[in-house]
Amino acid sequence: MKTHKVAVIAGDGIGPEVLAEGIKVLRKVEALDGNMKFDFTHFPWGCEYYANHGKMMADDGMDQLRNFEAIYLGAVGFPGVPDHVSLRELLLKIRKGFDQYVNIRPVQLLEGAPCPLKDVKREEVDMIVIRENSEGEYAGAGDWLFKGKPEEVVLQTGVFSRKGTERIIRYAYELARKEKKTLTSISKANALNYSMVFWDQVFEEVGKEYPEVKTASYLVDAAAMFFVKQPQRFQIVVTSNLFGDIITDLGAAIAGGMGLAAGANVNPERLHPSMFEPIHGSAPDIAGKGIANPLAAIWSASQMLDFFGYNDWGRAVLKSIEKVMVEKKTLTPDLGGTSTTSEVGNAVIAALAGISKPQC
Amino acid sequence: MKTHKVAVIAGDGIGPEVLAEGIKVLRKVEALDGNMKFDFTHFPWGCEYYANHGKMMADDGMDQLRNFEAIYLGAVGFPGVPDHVSLRELLLKIRKGFDQYVNIRPVQLLEGAPCPLKDVKREEVDMIVIRENSEGEYAGAGDWLFKGKPEEVVLQTGVFSRKGTERIIRYAYELARKEKKTLTSISKANALNYSMVFWDQVFEEVGKEYPEVKTASYLVDAAAMFFVKQPQRFQIVVTSNLFGDIITDLGAAIAGGMGLAAGANVNPERLHPSMFEPIHGSAPDIAGKGIANPLAAIWSASQMLDFFGYNDWGRAVLKSIEKVMVEKKTLTPDLGGTSTTSEVGNAVIAALAGISKPQC
Ligand SMILES: CC(C)[C@H](C(=O)O)[C@@H](O)C(=O)O
Ligand SMILES: CC(C)[C@H](C(=O)O)[C@@H](O)C(=O)O
Repeated sequence: MKTHKVAVIAGDGIGPEVLAEGIKVLRKVEALDGNMKFDFTHFPWGCEYYANHGKMMADDGMDQLRNFEAIYLGAVGFPGVPDHVSLRELLLKIRKGFDQYVNIRPVQLLEGAPCPLKDVKREEVDMIVIRENSEGEYAGAGDWLFKGKPEEVVLQTGVFSRKGTERIIRYAYELARKEKKTLTSISKANALNYSMVFWDQVFEEVGKEYPEVKTASYLVDAAAMFFVKQPQRFQIVVTSNLFGDIITDLGAAIAGGMGLAAGANVNPERLHPSMFEPIHGSAPDIAGKGIANPLAAIWSASQMLDFFGYNDWGRAVLKSIEKVMVEKKTLTPDLGGTSTTSEVGNAVIAALAGISKPQC
Repeated sequence: MKTHKVAVIAGDGIGPEVLAEGIKVLRKVEALDGNMKFDFTHFPWGCEYYANHGKMMADDGMDQLRNFEAIYLGAVGFPGVPDHVSLRELLLKIRKGFDQYVNIRPVQLLEGAPCPLKDVKREEVDMIVIRENSEGEYAGAGDWLFKGKPEEVVLQTGVFSRKGTERIIRYAYELARKEKKTLTSISKANALNYSMVFWDQVFEEVGKEYPEVKTASYLVDAAAMFFVKQPQRFQIVVTSNLFGDIITDLGAAIAGGMGLAAGANVNPERLHPSMFEPIHGSAPDIAGKGIANPLAAIWSASQMLDFFGYNDWGRAVLKSIEKVMVEKKTLTPDLGGTSTTSEVGNAVIAALAGISKPQC
């Protein structure tokens, strides 16, 4: 019997509602499998905590999290707390503090998922975006000079280290080699004359070690266009923190919507906990109504199963999500249904029970 | 008889082919109107010039351009010259050097233009993006430290000045007020904790002077998503240099493709020449084949007519483009036709002749 310690930070808005369903699904996997156990510990951090304590997490929050194998996160951010406070002091702090430098975001149109694009076949939207997750444009470096004066000037500095750039690009090459897929780098060297020239250089250099991997390189503006016009151009994508942020939301748009977009924040060396989260926000407008789509949170749970080494269970959960979508009987309003968050969770569990126990 | 001095920089790849058609259209307007004249001067700058002279433009290039009212630019960039050289030393140099701080990019689905989105009505894709065009992420500031060492680190600094940020935001508010449209700011303060916090603050501050203008604010990732899911959310958009770059290519994708995307680089004070260009690149793969779509270049010419004060002619040219697209008889391959660049130019001219002389 293997036990996996998971820290749960349900966070704000719809976070708790969608995570509850993900946890239900994980509990179901536990029951069906019989040889693994999840040990969940809940942390009450987020914007409500901030309202009461003036901070987003406990002072020793990172220490409290340190010994978990994984963190399962709902959503962070709520009106009343400035975003650059709530996000930088919780979500981004964890990503960076635990060196979760790989952000893995599947952009894959599941069977039954709606696609806003004409003339695109389901199997043509099928990529994995590897986003740099620890530095780059998100380094938080900058300055704000001559405040309030006419000469006021604000600087925001992206920081691209050799180590940080090389390791994410290498991770992507490894994945592309393993999966025998084309690796596409997205950058913008024609305008960002330091960072992206460096990025392109590292992409080429590291590529020499992977002569068997087919590569391509796109400017971020062209990539955004082709995500919409010809998503089949992309298989494995590697890109910077900011560009990854933008193109994965765009990816979510073409692959069923934010209600279906999952992300894993991974420290591949497993020196620190990795974190799994739906990439949608806290959606204050629908929070508490029980209508949030839990499928992104459940997909993240499936990524967690992969990370723990239960790839068959990970796949089974994904198949169950697909089954629920194909049946179209139990969907939340964002996917055109009338079901509640919890009904959708139950439908996934029912589908899972119907899938014969995978070989783990 | 009013004369307008226009510098023509046809540039690389398909640049000369598409500009030739734009110039034909402007000559037709000249003939039909009878009260204006265009005085075109051609400059041979670009990547071929670079190959022969080791520079993208003449040493006194900016001085040579200074006394023109407008610059009509084709495309810049060709394999063999690194993009960050070709672009920074010609296109970006002109934008910045002539303080063309407003980049006006219509994202408008013309009648007859193809749209890759299901469930979107033509009139729902109808916005104008006002992109900051002189500083921000494109400032070109940065550093490259410890080259080749393990501790190598590359910095790219976005520079957001009070003056630069305020003037672009103010320009957008003025436009929104004039057109009675909603103004949407696109930023990313939850991650870019200096520049975009400042941007949002200035957007709010300047907004106090325009109480009658309805506003909205989107994170760039969410905006990218909604461009695809609900483009009707956007009317006038104001955003930074880099975000504007990305979302206008995305805008082009939803509004008929790059063959239809035009941009004006304007110095509103008219202290320096303004520049009009299709926003597509030099497309080396199809250069010289006579199949490039000239409609973006012609649309830019229509923007130039607006800028010169001939709004009725500007509209007439746009109507002519629309007519050609609705007829579907004379289109280049990118729009599903079999016509040549020059045939499409001729079709626009024919359509223009058929439109009764507008009241100027
Ligand atoms: C909430 C925000 C800071 C975050 C990001 O920009 O990374 C989110 O958009 C994401 O993509 O996970
Ligand atoms: C060619 C490039 C430097 C330019 C930009 O990034 O501004 C182009 O993409 C554009 O949008 O005009």
